[in-house]
Amino acid sequence: MRKLNITELQRLSVDEFKQSSKMPLVVVLDDVRSMYNVGSVFRTSDAYRVECIYLCGITGCPPHAEIHKTALGAEDSVDWLYFESAEDAVEDLKRRGYKVFAVEQAEGSIGFPLPDDFMSDLPTGYAVVFGNEVKGVKQEVIDRCDGCIELPQYGTKHSLNVATTAGIVIWEYSKLLHGEL
Amino acid sequence: MRKLNITELQRLSVDEFKQSSKMPLVVVLDDVRSMYNVGSVFRTSDAYRVECIYLCGITGCPPHAEIHKTALGAEDSVDWLYFESAEDAVEDLKRRGYKVFAVEQAEGSIGFPLPDDFMSDLPTGYAVVFGNEVKGVKQEVIDRCDGCIELPQYGTKHSLNVATTAGIVIWEYSKLLHGEL
Repeated sequence: MRKLNITELQRLSVDEFKQSSKMPLVVVLDDVRSMYNVGSVFRTSDAYRVECIYLCGITGCPPHAEIHKTALGAEDSVDWLYFESAEDAVEDLKRRGYKVFAVEQAEGSIGFPLPDDFMSDLPTGYAVVFGNEVKGVKQEVIDRCDGCIELPQYGTKHSLNVATTAGIVIWEYSKLLHGEL
Repeated sequence: MRKLNITELQRLSVDEFKQSSKMPLVVVLDDVRSMYNVGSVFRTSDAYRVECIYLCGITGCPPHAEIHKTALGAEDSVDWLYFESAEDAVEDLKRRGYKVFAVEQAEGSIGFPLPDDFMSDLPTGYAVVFGNEVKGVKQEVIDRCDGCIELPQYGTKHSLNVATTAGIVIWEYSKLLHGEL
């Protein structure tokens, strides 16, 4: 099996990306401390054409050398907005008809993979909220969301890395929203 | 929705993890340069009870402060082995009846999500090979594998981060091999 070279991959230019149809998914990062994690989420959001990233609280914003180190330029293709408060970001999304889920281990959470009828009523779009590396999504942010979604985990550690979790969550949404691309 | 606290998550101790049944999946990292990526793969492998991680070539091994920074102790729960050459690692796995796939963008690769009949003949186990952050899996390693699997990507960048890719791939295998846990 011959590896494909970069031209055979037929990737989009940043201009083509800006013009392309996006997956109706907004990724909200609240108080994410590590710029490497932020950059990595940009890179995954580029690959799956996430509509927009909302950077909230202490989460760093581009341009930033550490974000660039893992985003590798995806911070130029993917749209983003900054909100001082994640509560405001969630309220903004809900007002505009988005269904907002916190990714968190909580009572009554919906387990991944998402059930087949999860998308039965298609809202304007979906949004997923990821919290701080240690503390997770704040209870007061969860309280404003439509629900929680949760990745099953079977090991010794409390949680997965936030950029890895975002990768799996964005990938799962991309499968469900693929027709929208 | 109330967030669960750490005791409610009922995570395994390292001793319980060592005794627990594992998913029949070996993760091979060849020439992965970043210790943060290595640590992050340990953490994901802990969450999904990967059988073993094969660290090859220049890939760093525990104990190491930078691996610990992202593994957060998962380097103590998940079994690992070091191989100087990934070719030898792949040969070892195939001799023991594993089906080995390189995760790479290549001619004739199998696209993710894996087709329903992918698991129709259950070998001893599966193995997935991830390569260097810049160069990917070496052609001579690919040539020894049973095939390539590939994540679809729709953006501007050449590839996803290796730890994010490993997260999605391990997650997809865990859904298919879940009954084994």
